[in-house]
Amino acid sequence: MIRFASDYCEGAHPKVLEKLFETNYEQTATYGEDIYCKRAAELIKKECKCENIDVHFLVGGTQTNLVFISSALRSHQAVVSAKTGHIAVHETGAIEATGHKIIELSHQDGKITSTQIMNVCREHSNDENHEHCVQPKMVYISNPTEFGTIYSKSELVELSKVCKECGLYLYMDGARLGYGLYSQENDLDLPTITDLCDAFYIGGTKMGALFGEALVISNDRLKEDFRYIMKQKGALLAKGRLLGLQFIALFEDGLYGEISKEANRLANIIKYACINKGYPFLTKTSTNQQFPIIPDSELRKLDDQYAYSFWQRIDETHSAVRFCTSWATKEEDVLKLVRDIEAL
Amino acid sequence: MIRFASDYCEGAHPKVLEKLFETNYEQTATYGEDIYCKRAAELIKKECKCENIDVHFLVGGTQTNLVFISSALRSHQAVVSAKTGHIAVHETGAIEATGHKIIELSHQDGKITSTQIMNVCREHSNDENHEHCVQPKMVYISNPTEFGTIYSKSELVELSKVCKECGLYLYMDGARLGYGLYSQENDLDLPTITDLCDAFYIGGTKMGALFGEALVISNDRLKEDFRYIMKQKGALLAKGRLLGLQFIALFEDGLYGEISKEANRLANIIKYACINKGYPFLTKTSTNQQFPIIPDSELRKLDDQYAYSFWQRIDETHSAVRFCTSWATKEEDVLKLVRDIEAL
Amino acid sequence: MIRFASDYCEGAHPKVLEKLFETNYEQTATYGEDIYCKRAAELIKKECKCENIDVHFLVGGTQTNLVFISSALRSHQAVVSAKTGHIAVHETGAIEATGHKIIELSHQDGKITSTQIMNVCREHSNDENHEHCVQPKMVYISNPTEFGTIYSKSELVELSKVCKECGLYLYMDGARLGYGLYSQENDLDLPTITDLCDAFYIGGTKMGALFGEALVISNDRLKEDFRYIMKQKGALLAKGRLLGLQFIALFEDGLYGEISKEANRLANIIKYACINKGYPFLTKTSTNQQFPIIPDSELRKLDDQYAYSFWQRIDETHSAVRFCTSWATKEEDVLKLVRDIEAL
Amino acid sequence: MIRFASDYCEGAHPKVLEKLFETNYEQTATYGEDIYCKRAAELIKKECKCENIDVHFLVGGTQTNLVFISSALRSHQAVVSAKTGHIAVHETGAIEATGHKIIELSHQDGKITSTQIMNVCREHSNDENHEHCVQPKMVYISNPTEFGTIYSKSELVELSKVCKECGLYLYMDGARLGYGLYSQENDLDLPTITDLCDAFYIGGTKMGALFGEALVISNDRLKEDFRYIMKQKGALLAKGRLLGLQFIALFEDGLYGEISKEANRLANIIKYACINKGYPFLTKTSTNQQFPIIPDSELRKLDDQYAYSFWQRIDETHSAVRFCTSWATKEEDVLKLVRDIEAL
Repeated sequence: MIRFASDYCEGAHPKVLEKLFETNYEQTATYGEDIYCKRAAELIKKECKCENIDVHFLVGGTQTNLVFISSALRSHQAVVSAKTGHIAVHETGAIEATGHKIIELSHQDGKITSTQIMNVCREHSNDENHEHCVQPKMVYISNPTEFGTIYSKSELVELSKVCKECGLYLYMDGARLGYGLYSQENDLDLPTITDLCDAFYIGGTKMGALFGEALVISNDRLKEDFRYIMKQKGALLAKGRLLGLQFIALFEDGLYGEISKEANRLANIIKYACINKGYPFLTKTSTNQQFPIIPDSELRKLDDQYAYSFWQRIDETHSAVRFCTSWATKEEDVLKLVRDIEAL
Repeated sequence: MIRFASDYCEGAHPKVLEKLFETNYEQTATYGEDIYCKRAAELIKKECKCENIDVHFLVGGTQTNLVFISSALRSHQAVVSAKTGHIAVHETGAIEATGHKIIELSHQDGKITSTQIMNVCREHSNDENHEHCVQPKMVYISNPTEFGTIYSKSELVELSKVCKECGLYLYMDGARLGYGLYSQENDLDLPTITDLCDAFYIGGTKMGALFGEALVISNDRLKEDFRYIMKQKGALLAKGRLLGLQFIALFEDGLYGEISKEANRLANIIKYACINKGYPFLTKTSTNQQFPIIPDSELRKLDDQYAYSFWQRIDETHSAVRFCTSWATKEEDVLKLVRDIEAL
Repeated sequence: MIRFASDYCEGAHPKVLEKLFETNYEQTATYGEDIYCKRAAELIKKECKCENIDVHFLVGGTQTNLVFISSALRSHQAVVSAKTGHIAVHETGAIEATGHKIIELSHQDGKITSTQIMNVCREHSNDENHEHCVQPKMVYISNPTEFGTIYSKSELVELSKVCKECGLYLYMDGARLGYGLYSQENDLDLPTITDLCDAFYIGGTKMGALFGEALVISNDRLKEDFRYIMKQKGALLAKGRLLGLQFIALFEDGLYGEISKEANRLANIIKYACINKGYPFLTKTSTNQQFPIIPDSELRKLDDQYAYSFWQRIDETHSAVRFCTSWATKEEDVLKLVRDIEAL
Repeated sequence: MIRFASDYCEGAHPKVLEKLFETNYEQTATYGEDIYCKRAAELIKKECKCENIDVHFLVGGTQTNLVFISSALRSHQAVVSAKTGHIAVHETGAIEATGHKIIELSHQDGKITSTQIMNVCREHSNDENHEHCVQPKMVYISNPTEFGTIYSKSELVELSKVCKECGLYLYMDGARLGYGLYSQENDLDLPTITDLCDAFYIGGTKMGALFGEALVISNDRLKEDFRYIMKQKGALLAKGRLLGLQFIALFEDGLYGEISKEANRLANIIKYACINKGYPFLTKTSTNQQFPIIPDSELRKLDDQYAYSFWQRIDETHSAVRFCTSWATKEEDVLKLVRDIEAL
């Protein structure tokens, strides 16, 4: 069985594991106050070309989202998200469990627009009894989205502008950020994101680490006492250095970019095989997730040898599926898949 | 200025106030354990033709909703509601503040259907990773809805059936229940509602009381320790007898029905004046709220003498507005309005 | 049976009820935005000799405490209270239910000291891993306390000073504030409390109203969006004017002071009867609650004719009990009790 | 610098790391539904001699406590703990943040007694207005405690008995469980703990793993939907197998016991050196944490070469400190310390 089901089915990139091995017997400070977390934070500040950010390392994406969002909002404040956003669908109500409503918007391939945000703010403030509704205070976007699509620089500039005008924070979930930043159509980079967003996280779990996400907070107002909230939510890893070490591995020699580019390259090989075959796509993307729409009869021929994700039913005889690549994907496996697609 | 803006702009029906006056110097037990709350509960049990219910008296509707829903659900469980439901829009995230997601459904004149519920349950359990999504566990409906419409007996039977099949509780927000039960098209009654719903509340605030809602819990599983949750949420009124006394006034001599019928009668006079005038309606209802769609130019002519609620813009020259009657509406004022509508 | 069990067993002072009657048919704005709430707020500002305060009217004490405290604190912040404080014991974990720890201190007759506060702050900030502990951010005191005792001006000045130095808010629960302000030993007044506390509430429920508490917020930082939190917690009364009207009755002609003084006077008659009889007291107070320690054998002789509260067992043959007076207490009943105590 | 400051300053026991290495390229199911988590659960069931338990793997101790406790309790229910319990002091109000009060009891060397529990229950149910107080529903104990002391079998039997009688759950925090189970005075074992507790966790982080705690739930009532709560609190590790693999390493060949015994042996060498020197102890324990009380002047002589924890000031010239051993402690370092203590 060759697996394209997900980008977090294996362990970690060997260079990541190596760091853990090398330092195993060292004694360090705990809870993220060690030299490795400090070093990793420095590397990320350099990538972001910004000294005035706080960098925190957390274990997983849901955890990062719930800790950050609950830290930033007062209890009557809501976060706005595409209705397909990870926080809206796949986190078991984690945000609501911390007391906040998610205002869910319709989406275009997983993305939302500045116009939608403006409308939400208008609706919630026009009402004379505005305090009978929640107060929109944050916009959550994922980049790439749950559909593999990415925001362009101009889209992010627009979102950021509207958020500033309306007094909302802009927060980017970057669980797969690398695949976005290193994809063909991308024109965003970390310094721009740092500048336009009040906070975002650089995903590790789906990018070659064993686990770990690096949260970057650039808005000063959101920095105070953040470690308290981390601890309170069970998100302060005792041996915090394990997180620092992994992000050092990813960022000290460009590994993060390498992993991203290679996974994207392999995903695009699959993409073009599907295009050549004439398959339509659920969304247009050059990142590591590809969502071709394939006749069920042909899919059945792939099932013996390949694992992929069923995504959604299109009609009675067609399904959208997801092929996903990662640091662990082998070119030979991709080429074999391509040949088998061609032969369908 | 003659007011049709709302059904809770005045104090209380004189018979309600009278009860408070009569008993003012009596000393009674506190926190709802007095003889008047007991008596009121007995009257409601009689109306519901059911002894095996718990009746609790709370101060307001948002409070009743948040106390009951948070008491019934575990933290990963969600409540399903029309996206226009009061809990979804006009309670400042009260339900989310207690930790629960509201799954918002599209609506038909404020109502939702058993098919929609079935689909929600299917979507949330089909997923192999079902624990990544919230668990739908309760259906919230308002009757009459926020648009004045009502559920028929067969609709409620269907909803109840699906809820039982899927393991969901069915909860009815009856802020204006009387106006629904005593409207022309209605075929529901309190015993049927008691039987079909796991809980519901009989509104007082909008039905002639100073304040107060009577929550009826018929499902035994939801009864345990409910007063603890009331107290914890600040919903156990110290002089609880004030609630009991008001519900005695409303139910000992049929006042609740009288108020409902008269308010409906007056609202329907307005309704037919609008129909005669050829105005379309936002929704079709015979309850105390009427939502005609009127040219803005004609509305302006009413503005000097009448207060009503702007509801929503229909197009550039028309608005849906709400005329609302209550125990305090005078027939002469209604007739004057009718004449002025005819003259538009 | 003559009742001294509590100060909220009856309805309301007749002048309070009268206001409700007089205005019953008026139509006003809802949710506390009516002219009566505005008027009542003005009266309270005058009493406090301060224009720069926000005044909100809520229904009950637990509600007021939970809404205010949860509005003021971020989730890692804790409130410090005597372990006998109402929020710590008799509110079913209402504060914790909004996510906040109560740091409970030992007490002296229900009171806590500035030194205790300083120590708490020191302990919580000395630790190098301070983010592993909650952050003390508010001090809660009740005045009079649950034992009827009151804070002196110098004590409150000290508490306020320490709070400012340590960055804590000072909040006073004034459920029975009038009985404190008008007691013999008192040297505090509303302007001083307004100045020294960041917020406090003037109780109505136990002071002659049907229900209602007036929350005064003097610290600007704690004012923003407060009505949102009220609505979210179910604490925005639909017919809010009922609260405004009651506080107008209490404050427009000095009724609040009259009620307080008279209840204190009657309580002190009981107090001196007990002193003459040689009974010791649980605490020394001149407010409307008196806690004599009486032989059980003698108590039994009072049981037929008088209702009072058992407070705590002192030894095998003695109990501390509470006699409580209010606006509804009759002098003749007090004198009868005094004679019966003398005769014991 | 030789470090005795903590038992989680290093990485992981080499056998633990090895497992991660060996399996790094394997593709497995995610979120703890992989073969390794299943295998680890089987091993733990075998250790507990019980098939009818649920085993869940979480990342850290605070996380495990907050997920389990919030899953088990309704919002008006409280957990009883020693005031020195980890949840009461060092988790930044994590339990309160999920809505629950911790009832804090005085302790004897970190332990609480069945008599104390009985009294708490009595106090909370005797009150006629019992719903004005929280409802005690769970007892939290740590074993070993924060002071290194352990519960005897008879003490645990008593606690369990009282809990059953009063309808409380008994939950054991086993962050350092191994050091307790393999200490000299211990007469408990995993099957007994499984039998007497409703749930407990077997710590990994402080016992030689990189991270990870194995929660064992034996009470059927507490098992339902537990993975939902894990996900919601950000506690479902994406690459869950990392947890399973580590617990396999710890339990397949007795490594957990070996680590425990060796760390205890080394700690006891330090203990006897202190005893010989005539130092008193804060608590009497044979586990891996030792708390001698040492003159400050002598401590200063150790500071250059040894890291240890300051625990509490005893008097002006003496401090209680903690020496802590782990899988990574070297005998030669211990012996050097012993010589230097002898030479003080």
